[in-house]
Amino acid sequence: MAQSWSIPSTPPSDETYQSWQKIILKYCKENKSKDLDTLIDLGISLAKNSDDHNNPTYWANDKTKDALHELQSCMGIANLEVQQHLAQQEKVSQQADFDVAEMTRALDKEYTEYKARIKALLSYPAFRLQTIPNKEVFREHVLQWTRDLADQGLGALAFAPEYGGEGDMGKYAALFDAMGYHDLSLAIKFGVQFGLFGGSINWLGTKYHHDKYLKDTGTLALAGCFAMTETGHGSNVRGLQTTAIYDAATDEIVVHTPTEDDGKEYIGNAMHSTMASVFAQLIVDGEHHGVHAILVPLRDAQHQNLPGIRIEDCGYKLGLNGVDNGRIWFDQVRVPRQNLLNRFGDIDAKGKYTSPISNPSRRFFTMLGTLVGGRVCVPRAGLSAAKTGLAIAIKHSLRRRQFEQKTGGQEMLLLDYPSHQRRLMPLLAKSYAISFGLDYLTQRFVNRTEDDIREIESLAAGMKAYATWFTTSALQECREACGGKGYLTENRLGQLKADTEIFTTFEGDNTVLMLLVSKGLLSNFSKAFHDDGFVAVLRMLGNQFSTLIMEQNPYTKRKSDSGYLLSGHFQLAAFRYREQKLLHTVSQRMRGLIKNKVNSTDAFLRCQTHLLSLADAFVERTILEQFISQSKQIDDKPTRDMLKQMTQLYALHTIESHKDFYLESEYMSPTKTKAIRRLVDQLCMELRRQADALVDAFAIPDELLAAPIAL
Amino acid sequence: MAQSWSIPSTPPSDETYQSWQKIILKYCKENKSKDLDTLIDLGISLAKNSDDHNNPTYWANDKTKDALHELQSCMGIANLEVQQHLAQQEKVSQQADFDVAEMTRALDKEYTEYKARIKALLSYPAFRLQTIPNKEVFREHVLQWTRDLADQGLGALAFAPEYGGEGDMGKYAALFDAMGYHDLSLAIKFGVQFGLFGGSINWLGTKYHHDKYLKDTGTLALAGCFAMTETGHGSNVRGLQTTAIYDAATDEIVVHTPTEDDGKEYIGNAMHSTMASVFAQLIVDGEHHGVHAILVPLRDAQHQNLPGIRIEDCGYKLGLNGVDNGRIWFDQVRVPRQNLLNRFGDIDAKGKYTSPISNPSRRFFTMLGTLVGGRVCVPRAGLSAAKTGLAIAIKHSLRRRQFEQKTGGQEMLLLDYPSHQRRLMPLLAKSYAISFGLDYLTQRFVNRTEDDIREIESLAAGMKAYATWFTTSALQECREACGGKGYLTENRLGQLKADTEIFTTFEGDNTVLMLLVSKGLLSNFSKAFHDDGFVAVLRMLGNQFSTLIMEQNPYTKRKSDSGYLLSGHFQLAAFRYREQKLLHTVSQRMRGLIKNKVNSTDAFLRCQTHLLSLADAFVERTILEQFISQSKQIDDKPTRDMLKQMTQLYALHTIESHKDFYLESEYMSPTKTKAIRRLVDQLCMELRRQADALVDAFAIPDELLAAPIAL
Repeated sequence: MAQSWSIPSTPPSDETYQSWQKIILKYCKENKSKDLDTLIDLGISLAKNSDDHNNPTYWANDKTKDALHELQSCMGIANLEVQQHLAQQEKVSQQADFDVAEMTRALDKEYTEYKARIKALLSYPAFRLQTIPNKEVFREHVLQWTRDLADQGLGALAFAPEYGGEGDMGKYAALFDAMGYHDLSLAIKFGVQFGLFGGSINWLGTKYHHDKYLKDTGTLALAGCFAMTETGHGSNVRGLQTTAIYDAATDEIVVHTPTEDDGKEYIGNAMHSTMASVFAQLIVDGEHHGVHAILVPLRDAQHQNLPGIRIEDCGYKLGLNGVDNGRIWFDQVRVPRQNLLNRFGDIDAKGKYTSPISNPSRRFFTMLGTLVGGRVCVPRAGLSAAKTGLAIAIKHSLRRRQFEQKTGGQEMLLLDYPSHQRRLMPLLAKSYAISFGLDYLTQRFVNRTEDDIREIESLAAGMKAYATWFTTSALQECREACGGKGYLTENRLGQLKADTEIFTTFEGDNTVLMLLVSKGLLSNFSKAFHDDGFVAVLRMLGNQFSTLIMEQNPYTKRKSDSGYLLSGHFQLAAFRYREQKLLHTVSQRMRGLIKNKVNSTDAFLRCQTHLLSLADAFVERTILEQFISQSKQIDDKPTRDMLKQMTQLYALHTIESHKDFYLESEYMSPTKTKAIRRLVDQLCMELRRQADALVDAFAIPDELLAAPIAL
Repeated sequence: MAQSWSIPSTPPSDETYQSWQKIILKYCKENKSKDLDTLIDLGISLAKNSDDHNNPTYWANDKTKDALHELQSCMGIANLEVQQHLAQQEKVSQQADFDVAEMTRALDKEYTEYKARIKALLSYPAFRLQTIPNKEVFREHVLQWTRDLADQGLGALAFAPEYGGEGDMGKYAALFDAMGYHDLSLAIKFGVQFGLFGGSINWLGTKYHHDKYLKDTGTLALAGCFAMTETGHGSNVRGLQTTAIYDAATDEIVVHTPTEDDGKEYIGNAMHSTMASVFAQLIVDGEHHGVHAILVPLRDAQHQNLPGIRIEDCGYKLGLNGVDNGRIWFDQVRVPRQNLLNRFGDIDAKGKYTSPISNPSRRFFTMLGTLVGGRVCVPRAGLSAAKTGLAIAIKHSLRRRQFEQKTGGQEMLLLDYPSHQRRLMPLLAKSYAISFGLDYLTQRFVNRTEDDIREIESLAAGMKAYATWFTTSALQECREACGGKGYLTENRLGQLKADTEIFTTFEGDNTVLMLLVSKGLLSNFSKAFHDDGFVAVLRMLGNQFSTLIMEQNPYTKRKSDSGYLLSGHFQLAAFRYREQKLLHTVSQRMRGLIKNKVNSTDAFLRCQTHLLSLADAFVERTILEQFISQSKQIDDKPTRDMLKQMTQLYALHTIESHKDFYLESEYMSPTKTKAIRRLVDQLCMELRRQADALVDAFAIPDELLAAPIAL
């Protein structure tokens, strides 16, 4: 009987339908205490209690549940209010299945209390967020904020105790998380002064420089800038044109800008600084030794430019107008020889160049590598900005109603629209995923050794690019999801977006960084098989991959039931396949080119877009692995269960967004990709009920959230 | 012999390879006069001149050319400088294959001279672009610019001659194109005053209002605003809460804001206006007649608020800070009965409500329909902003060098990087495509009749959403492509981006508009088959589609040679298939839901993301049809040929970006999608040489381009 109704051509009559409705409503009323959150729960509960059903276990088996889930997903029962109507409850429970404080601890880990303390500090009236249109006034304000933080001892955090710090990079990274919820101009100004200028002294200088400058740098008694980028040379640091020529006659170094286009540009803190860490080509006795950093005083006690120094304001920018970016030119500026930051390259008293690293290329990369901390911290601040945006957009969508009138004559909540869930929930899951990914990066960075530093640099490059691109796109979506409200400065979204947009460019252009990642992936193998040469390695890679493919089980290949697709096993395999397949195909392509007398630089160039996809696949695989393994280790079960659903949404949504790859490579069938789409819909719907608690877990103080966006 | 070299396992020796190089270089030197722009030209020319080749026609046939093109594409010979090196020419010709002025005419059509005149006007010193951070000062500045344009007679353009205008909507739309190259605050301020406020009087009022207000509106002697959106009701205009109750005792209308959240919000021109066109629920003798517009004076001659009026500044925004957006509340504000804009609904002298349209729903849509001009103009201004961004980014990429050293020791131009070509060239093609699409929309709008107005409204909704989303994403890409330079306000990109971002929300939220489009597509059929009912229509649709599928030729389905893929025939078929398939599947899904007793509103809701894809497919199909058909009609052959390549890039890149759809629906095989990707790469490379001329065709005056971005 029931079977015949399910045939579209013989639907139940209106009377039958209405009698069902009565039975269901009566049942709901009588069973309010039961946990009937979804239609599936309801259906199973009804069936189990049905008198005329002989086999109640039939309803509890996985196959039936899967079928019901699919049915519900196809029907698109997307909003809680429909269910509420059916259940005739006052209000469907919006309570989360987990404890918010436990979730915060899962995200912030050992720095939970520390971050809470910093966020509390940033909620003080002195740090009240303001819109200050005039850049000079805004910059003074941000400078004062930076001083306030330095007064709390935060500026020196990464330095050794003898210079007022704790030598704790992990804490310094956590500080960036916390600052990312505040005005981003503060985080960047702070990062330039203590991380870049201070970092260059700390990592590239030696005891002489530490003793002389580090303490004052940490307290901001000495304001400095990091003069690396030139108008003509951004990403290509090796090609910098500024020269630093040693003059043996006076035992001085002469810093000079050859042409207008070789001036330093976008230099943060340029207008407030009295000293710069200048990156220039060091030339000793006519011999070029590559890029080195030299401390060059810029201004006198009256803040007037010193002779030979020219500084211009970069003017207004799309965002970060609280940071004073400028251009600097040097006209034969003389500084003592001792101003060379000489850890990796020195000029001795006899005027002879010496270095502990004889290979100039290795020396260059070692020097740059010490500065990778910026790439660890910048994406953290950006991610916090994205989390703020998501919290604002999700909270707005849980208050703002529009259009369709549902029960009680009220319009529907924005987040009950499937398109709105699709817009925000996968981004929320991704923000969680990246959070775990960045923690992994930070931990690797803090524990780095000589042996794994190159690998960590590669990881930092990839994570920085991936996370900051995410920030830009997530904030764009949040802005649009809040409509006109999102455009008003008072609601933060626009400003957060404008401020973080340049994160995709500074600390390394994202595209360039992603190419670095791919080069790293290829050269990892190259190093291991050094003797056989590069081409042999590429051939090896291909063989490995063929093995991987062959090991695929033709049975699992066809599986598309939701239990399987929701498993970490399937998801990790899919992510790994993508990375391996791209590594394989790009190496094959490059092997072909090299065989055809194309030099390796040109071969890289020609495979550029291919290499970018590979880097993306590498980062996503790393993040998923970390997200799954770290959340499995969490003790609190409700938190762990919730995170499992978040990993599922991140994984399946990512697979869905690379559907074209999986279909084109015939790793998945259309049936499977369609099943994945339905599961993503379903996960978005299920997580919607937890959305408020999931953003509350970011523990953002009210002072840092948009107040008036609440309609 | 030659055949054996082409087998990877038996490559030619180094000596052979070098002797070839010598022959090729010698040949190039001796044949400088020949047009050897690509390696293929060179190869064919060499072969034709070869002594020992007996069959020169072999090299000229299509199959060989295709194979060569594919080979070149696979090899990724991506930059002109490689070829330049090979050809030992001074500089590979960067000259375009077409005349820039002819291309401008193809884009601007009958308004070529008019637009040039407006752009010249906007290049005068009085209109010099400035960065004015203080919003009050900026707003005064933009107000003055608006006055200057009104003084030129531009404000009244769309009004009838007796009110100082030309009654020319086509010209008015062209004006928006031109204004879109300037500061967007001006275009929006202008649009609010003349298009929205003036438009409401012009289209919703009658002779009494025209005579009394239109002339002063066109000269800006009367500054007005358009008070429709409320804090609680944006997209859902029908749900507006402000009331307008007719008081028979005094023959007045009482305009009132019931609660704080019902205040008007984001109202442009609110701070400068003395009058508002207020949209409110008209209630006459206790009866509700739906939303009507009433003219309400806001301020007295001293610019003080009139009694019962409260106005607040919306404050700073992400962009458009030259526009004074505000919030307005009405506390029992009384205006004469005659202030009702009474074209579609009136209160007669006896206090009785009358309307030429008896159906309230039809009346509502007719009133809103008259305001569709905004949706015609806004995307035009946005597209000009995107074109400005593309011109800046492309010109920058043709000057800025980075990294790899090629011939002559110079670093490579950014646009010679394949990833950079991939970033910018498809966007350039899309900007051209949308240009033709918007011209079609404008022409349909200008020539609209009672019969096709609903169809045109739907078209306007879709084009507005598609074009403004393009603007946002294109400017984002351009900003990133210019790195730090793109972040500086002096280079316009950031500001253009921030200003146009809200275009996706105002004049109708894009997501809501796209759903309107889909509803229109479904109801078009519904109207035609009215008698059979909606479900029958959906069934019909399914049948039509099945026929379409069956008519597919299994032979062409497998074709993947480039000649076929480059043909408009294939591309249009693919675009149409996508639209039809989505229409089919969504109608099937809805039919299923409706059969299962889901009401049609809920059915629409559940298919939301599906309906959004359908709307996207509809807009893209319309644009491609217009792009192909309009460019075919152009007389000048070089222009026509160039545009053909642009249609190819737009079409194939769009297909590529929906690759997942085509693979999932098994309309295309992986072989075919891979061939398409290679063709897109190839087209990007070929068009790169024309890039400079293609953006020059936008005819943007130097004053409106970023000056210092040129490195």
